[in-house]
Amino acid sequence: MNDLWFSAVAAVIALVFTWLFSVHIKRQRAGTKEMKSLAKMIQDGAMTFLRRQYTILVLFVIIVAIVLFLFVAKGTAVAFLCGAILSGLAGWIGMRTATTANVRTANAARTSLNKGLGIAFKSGAVMGLMVVGLGILGITILLSAFGNLFSVELSNAVDLLFGFGFGASSIALFARVGGGIFTKAADVGADLVGKVEAGIPEDDPRNPAVIADNVGDNVGDVAGMGADLFESYVGSIISAMALGFLVFGSQGVLFPLLLASIGILCSIIGTFFVRAKTDKHVQSALRNGLFVSSILVAIGAYFLSTYYLHNINVFWATISGLIAGIVIGLSTEYFTSASYNPVKKLAETAKGGPAPLIIEGHAIGMFSTVIPIVFILAAILVSFYTSGLFGIAIAAVGMLSTLGISLAVDAYGPVADNAGGIAEMAKLGANVRKRTDALDSAGNTTAAIGKGFAIGSAALTALALFSTFATKAGITSINLTNPLVITGLFIGGTMPFLFSGLTMKAVGRAANTMIEEVRRQFKEIKGLLQGKAKGDHVKCVAISTSGALREMVLPGLLAVIVPVAVGVFLGIEALGGLLGGALVTGVLLAITMANAGGAWDNAKKYIEEGHFGGKGKAPHKAAVVGDTVGDPYKDTSGPSLNILIKLMSIVALVFVPLFIALA
Amino acid sequence: MNDLWFSAVAAVIALVFTWLFSVHIKRQRAGTKEMKSLAKMIQDGAMTFLRRQYTILVLFVIIVAIVLFLFVAKGTAVAFLCGAILSGLAGWIGMRTATTANVRTANAARTSLNKGLGIAFKSGAVMGLMVVGLGILGITILLSAFGNLFSVELSNAVDLLFGFGFGASSIALFARVGGGIFTKAADVGADLVGKVEAGIPEDDPRNPAVIADNVGDNVGDVAGMGADLFESYVGSIISAMALGFLVFGSQGVLFPLLLASIGILCSIIGTFFVRAKTDKHVQSALRNGLFVSSILVAIGAYFLSTYYLHNINVFWATISGLIAGIVIGLSTEYFTSASYNPVKKLAETAKGGPAPLIIEGHAIGMFSTVIPIVFILAAILVSFYTSGLFGIAIAAVGMLSTLGISLAVDAYGPVADNAGGIAEMAKLGANVRKRTDALDSAGNTTAAIGKGFAIGSAALTALALFSTFATKAGITSINLTNPLVITGLFIGGTMPFLFSGLTMKAVGRAANTMIEEVRRQFKEIKGLLQGKAKGDHVKCVAISTSGALREMVLPGLLAVIVPVAVGVFLGIEALGGLLGGALVTGVLLAITMANAGGAWDNAKKYIEEGHFGGKGKAPHKAAVVGDTVGDPYKDTSGPSLNILIKLMSIVALVFVPLFIALA
Repeated sequence: MNDLWFSAVAAVIALVFTWLFSVHIKRQRAGTKEMKSLAKMIQDGAMTFLRRQYTILVLFVIIVAIVLFLFVAKGTAVAFLCGAILSGLAGWIGMRTATTANVRTANAARTSLNKGLGIAFKSGAVMGLMVVGLGILGITILLSAFGNLFSVELSNAVDLLFGFGFGASSIALFARVGGGIFTKAADVGADLVGKVEAGIPEDDPRNPAVIADNVGDNVGDVAGMGADLFESYVGSIISAMALGFLVFGSQGVLFPLLLASIGILCSIIGTFFVRAKTDKHVQSALRNGLFVSSILVAIGAYFLSTYYLHNINVFWATISGLIAGIVIGLSTEYFTSASYNPVKKLAETAKGGPAPLIIEGHAIGMFSTVIPIVFILAAILVSFYTSGLFGIAIAAVGMLSTLGISLAVDAYGPVADNAGGIAEMAKLGANVRKRTDALDSAGNTTAAIGKGFAIGSAALTALALFSTFATKAGITSINLTNPLVITGLFIGGTMPFLFSGLTMKAVGRAANTMIEEVRRQFKEIKGLLQGKAKGDHVKCVAISTSGALREMVLPGLLAVIVPVAVGVFLGIEALGGLLGGALVTGVLLAITMANAGGAWDNAKKYIEEGHFGGKGKAPHKAAVVGDTVGDPYKDTSGPSLNILIKLMSIVALVFVPLFIALA
Repeated sequence: MNDLWFSAVAAVIALVFTWLFSVHIKRQRAGTKEMKSLAKMIQDGAMTFLRRQYTILVLFVIIVAIVLFLFVAKGTAVAFLCGAILSGLAGWIGMRTATTANVRTANAARTSLNKGLGIAFKSGAVMGLMVVGLGILGITILLSAFGNLFSVELSNAVDLLFGFGFGASSIALFARVGGGIFTKAADVGADLVGKVEAGIPEDDPRNPAVIADNVGDNVGDVAGMGADLFESYVGSIISAMALGFLVFGSQGVLFPLLLASIGILCSIIGTFFVRAKTDKHVQSALRNGLFVSSILVAIGAYFLSTYYLHNINVFWATISGLIAGIVIGLSTEYFTSASYNPVKKLAETAKGGPAPLIIEGHAIGMFSTVIPIVFILAAILVSFYTSGLFGIAIAAVGMLSTLGISLAVDAYGPVADNAGGIAEMAKLGANVRKRTDALDSAGNTTAAIGKGFAIGSAALTALALFSTFATKAGITSINLTNPLVITGLFIGGTMPFLFSGLTMKAVGRAANTMIEEVRRQFKEIKGLLQGKAKGDHVKCVAISTSGALREMVLPGLLAVIVPVAVGVFLGIEALGGLLGGALVTGVLLAITMANAGGAWDNAKKYIEEGHFGGKGKAPHKAAVVGDTVGDPYKDTSGPSLNILIKLMSIVALVFVPLFIALA
């Protein structure tokens, strides 16, 4: 267990870089007085939301911790608290940084593109390295504490760690669902009244919902995405540790930690390769960093497998996950980027109005499930047949090993998006706006790729958790010819549909309140539409906040209660069926919704570039409808499903002792 | 085996009533010269489509029959041919009758509402009784022939019957997919150019795509729905016979046949209860017939279970299916009828434009999966714990026992719809149009309920086939902890997404060609829009026909080839996983798409009744977009999934000998 120093050091290095980057960002100038005031509104809105959200979550976390303490194990309850706190902390710091960096990115873009890119990317890197750093540090400290301070045996100590994953999952679910509802209520509301009804451009300062929209980019895309991947990261590592112990003993426990630690170092090296000379190079700059890290991780995994574990098979499992992650990203790019045929053809259907566009976009989403599923299955089969169930978990760890940089690339997007919004609102001029547009456009593509990656890693992580669940529950068979398992399979399969239905309705309701409020302000505040008076931004932020917080509760509770209820009343085997069913429909729906939404978004942008008549013509109006429909698909319901499948798996896993006691 | 005379007699009685009804319909007057000419165009279009479709299917049927002959069993090949031929025959006669009855319904509505209802309903009854009559007759004759002529043992004879189900399934798939693409290409094309662009009403004779739209109602809703339920009917009965033999011997084989025969007689009695005095009573008239039949079947099932099988448990299995069917129908009505809250609230979202309406409708669709799934699961558990796997199959037979009348109610819809179209095109006046509207409106609700019923029965039938598959393949476990089963589960789960993506794209492509053709005609044919010149209806029908026939091939082949490939390359257990995965996502997607589509359709009608500004205002335009999006959801992709899950199950079942030989 002395090898734990390596992961501790790697985690600390990540946190040191987090600190360096964030100091660097803070030192930059924030620009004009107006820019500072806009940035402050966004930051205040974001931090207020987070504060209110965390206040609600504290209650939830305490209740669950007590339940775990009483019915499962004390160590699980402690680990649960640590997981929840660290996930919350990562979200808090990531968001503080993002809302500090957005205005500085806009200001830097007044000087040069590369300076803007540097700040926005460093802000993403803070989020990425914070997530991996806190994740590895938490696991390392808990493992060491359980082992050394409380003299728990290693395999039991690892079991207690699932509480850590559960804590991270709980926060992730509420962060994703709440953040997703917040951001899309604001976005849909702002777009429908502003762009469609009042005919004013996006991010126009006259629209009082615009600040809420910019706040939403942060709470949804930064905090939500960060919490989601924090969960995948620690979930896959802990699963691999638990399954690794069964095959390789203590070395099997440490291997995933060491692999992840190597990944951290490679990610940090990768960040130095992100530089762009012209606006054509932003996206390739981001991609370069990711590729460099991936290659370095592959080399590291080879040496780690050969010289530490003396087992080359595990290397293949790692690589299968790494490759699947990259292919899923590329497939997502193919189906959602305007550079390729699907989106171009989709944009053309807008000539027939919104209906054909919606049909075609939905078809693209469904169609786009095939490649990711094929590569996930390939990774499962390769990793299983080389390294057993441990291999499946290692494939997930492999896919997530470069998370430090891939999350940085991803969290870069909303910062660039915000910078563009601030540039527009503060009227920084066409030249600056062109630079922020270039930054933003690259961010849209990386955001879509990041979503694909988040789904793929969620699928592999959930599968690793599922395998661990079956192993820990001591069931050798989850038999589909048993009607109770079929019942579980159907209940599980229905959960993502119910969950998506609830979150979509929630966005609809909150957006409606927002629409009415903006209409009211346009009507009652004289001179607002003429740009002579200021709108009530705070009211709009408050609407999104309370809507999101109210609507996140029911889906969140369902995700925890349903698996426990099935385990208690229908038994462990039926619960296994539930996890299988949720995994299948969850992954498929998530890919469908993410890619349909991404395709509609970029079809609109493609038309705005001047195709099929450009802005303002009928095809553009149709494309705006598609984009709006896609908003909750890709940013609320779809991503929430990632968490749902992982959370239900980890709930099942953590409560195994309870189910066994009741059986 | 002497008891086979009872089912033979019941089948013959059904066919005699079919003949009586159809003679009655033919004797009615067809109205004015213009009406006759319109009706002829529709009938010619429909029969041409069917002829060309069958020509393609003959090739497919012959190839599959040869494969079965060589690799499975000669008897299976013979049964396959019979199933395909009878399914095709039922479709042919049902469609001939519907296209004879439509104009006579319109003409009768010139005299009275009840006369119109009588003709339209009798046309539906021809379809309903034809399906159950040919289904039972086919099974009875084949069973008797295999047993008496070729001295095959009873249980082996029943196994050969699965070829009959496979034949019916194959035709059903192409009928549903081809018919669904035909009807929606025409409908979407006609609506987008006519209603949206040219601003002329629905069914306006100036629109050259209107005839194709009316042809589509017949090929999609009559032939497609008939073939779908023919497959469920024979599939569930044969499954129950096979599983019944294992528990009750020859009595177990005959019980499902006798139950279905009782159902035929009860359905015929029910048809005499369908009468309406005023236009408020059309729907309750249709419902009365169904309720009378259901109660009679329940009584019959009680006596059959007690005095023939001496096993009251089987009665409970029958009832669980019957009740699940009714509840699924009512739940569908709740979520899709404008009399209840979901559709009213949906219509209100149209005030915010098409985007909120699409989001809310999709959410309703997803949300509406919960009740049907709960009742399907209840039926599974009740029937399994009272009567084992046999019980699950009997629940499906119970649900489908009243098919003679429930399909009649369902196939009534498109006839009433066509009658309305003919009344509009032939300008029969407001009074007549009001009566056909009343008939049509009841038809829309029954069509939605029929769709829910079709999905529910498909789910139970697929599950019965799945249980039979596992039994026949001799596998005691389909183990979800086996990565090959997970692989199968994911491949199966992806199939409905791929299939829906393909069929939705197909509708989009065919509709696009239609749109361009109608635009061309409006532009090039002088005086067309002024009503002074005639459009080229034939060209539009030809576009839908060739589009449908071209596009049905790939999804159709996939449905047959994928399960065989998985069985051959990944093994029987993985194939079991595939069936489970397809069942879950297939049923959930089918319910989502059917109910979202139904809700959008009726939200539009609700607005047209004068709510939120009524016809022509912005909310109405938004609702038209929703309705158009819903068209392929509810009439092409959704219903095709019913067949997909049944067809893949029966393919797996039929090819079991091949997989065992290769294993």
